[in-house]
Amino acid sequence: MARTTGSHSDITGPRVRAAALSLFAQHGFAAVSMRQIAKDVGVQAGALYNYTPDKQSLLFDLMQTHMQELLEARAEAFEEGSAMARLEAFTRFHIRFHSQRPEEVFIAYMELRNLTPENFARIEGLRRRYEDELEAILQAGVGEGLFAVSDTKIATLAVIAMLTGVNTWYREGGRLSLDEVERIYWDMVRKSVSA
Amino acid sequence: MARTTGSHSDITGPRVRAAALSLFAQHGFAAVSMRQIAKDVGVQAGALYNYTPDKQSLLFDLMQTHMQELLEARAEAFEEGSAMARLEAFTRFHIRFHSQRPEEVFIAYMELRNLTPENFARIEGLRRRYEDELEAILQAGVGEGLFAVSDTKIATLAVIAMLTGVNTWYREGGRLSLDEVERIYWDMVRKSVSA
Repeated sequence: MARTTGSHSDITGPRVRAAALSLFAQHGFAAVSMRQIAKDVGVQAGALYNYTPDKQSLLFDLMQTHMQELLEARAEAFEEGSAMARLEAFTRFHIRFHSQRPEEVFIAYMELRNLTPENFARIEGLRRRYEDELEAILQAGVGEGLFAVSDTKIATLAVIAMLTGVNTWYREGGRLSLDEVERIYWDMVRKSVSA
Repeated sequence: MARTTGSHSDITGPRVRAAALSLFAQHGFAAVSMRQIAKDVGVQAGALYNYTPDKQSLLFDLMQTHMQELLEARAEAFEEGSAMARLEAFTRFHIRFHSQRPEEVFIAYMELRNLTPENFARIEGLRRRYEDELEAILQAGVGEGLFAVSDTKIATLAVIAMLTGVNTWYREGGRLSLDEVERIYWDMVRKSVSA
C-alpha cells in the first residue's frame, strides 16, 4: 500500500515553523519556550528536536526564509526599463509583498536583537542585497538626471522605512484598497527622489 | 538633621523605570519578570510593588511618559510660520527627539501588542495627537497650494515612518552627523509632499 502522507519532517517542519512564527510574533522570541511550540504543534517537547536543533535555529530559519522569499519574489518581478519604471515597480512590489506577511516582517525587524552575531551577519547580508537593488535604481536615476538624491544609501533606507510602515496601519477591507495605497506611496516616493 | 535624600519613591521610581526600560528593550516585555527588574534595581521582589502595581502598569507608564515627553517637547519647539517652515521644523524635531531615545522608541512601537485594550487606546490617543499636528501642517500646505497630497492622513503616516526609520541605522559618531541626516531627510520630505 502506497504511503499517502509524507515523512514526519515533511509534515511537521512547516507546522513547527508556522507555530514558531505565530508565537514569536505574539509574545516575542525570548518569552516563547520550545515546550510551548511543541504544545502548539501537538508533539512532545523532545520530538521537536527532530525538526530543529534549538530555538535560535528556528528564529534564524524564519528570518532567512523570509529574506530568501523576498529576494526570489523580487527577482521574479524584475523588469527592465527606465529608473523611473523600475522605482515604481519596486515600490509597488515592496508594499504588496510586505503587507501580505505582517508576522514575518514584524519578526524580521524586531528579533534582530535575539540573533547570534553570526546569524545576524547572515540576515544583514540578505537584507543588504535587497537594499542594494533599490540603491542601484536610485543611482541609475541619478545618472539619467531623473533623480536628485544626495546620498543614495540613506535615500534607500528612507524609502524602505516609509514603505514598510504601511504594515503598521494597513488592514484588508479598510478605508483604502492596496491599489490605492500603492498609488499614494508611489506618488510620494517618486517626488521624494525627483530632480 | 535635614534629610539629604528623597523618599524611597523619589529614588527608586526612576531606577525602576530605567531598569524596566532597559530590560524590556533587550528581552521584550513578555520575557522579563518583576523579579528580574527588582534584581536589576537591587531591591527585593516584594519591595517593587511599592512602586508599581504590576508589570503592565510599568509598561504603560513607560509608553505614556514617552508620548507625553514627545508632545511636551513638540509644544516647546512649536513656531508659527508657513506650512513649509513648520514642516521643516517638525521633520528636524522628530529626527532629533527620536534618535536620542532608541529604547523608548523601540518599546513604543514593539510592545503595543502587550498593552491591555484600555491602555492601548490611551497610548493610541496620545500618538494620534502627535500625528494630528503633522497632518494639520500638511492640510495647511495643501490650502496654501504649496503641497500636493491626495490623502493627508496617509501622507502623515508615511512621513513619520520614514523619519522614525532613522533609528534603525543612525549611530552617533557614524558616517553622517545628525545635522546631515536632518538635511537629507528634510530634502526628501519636502519633495515628497510638494505640489
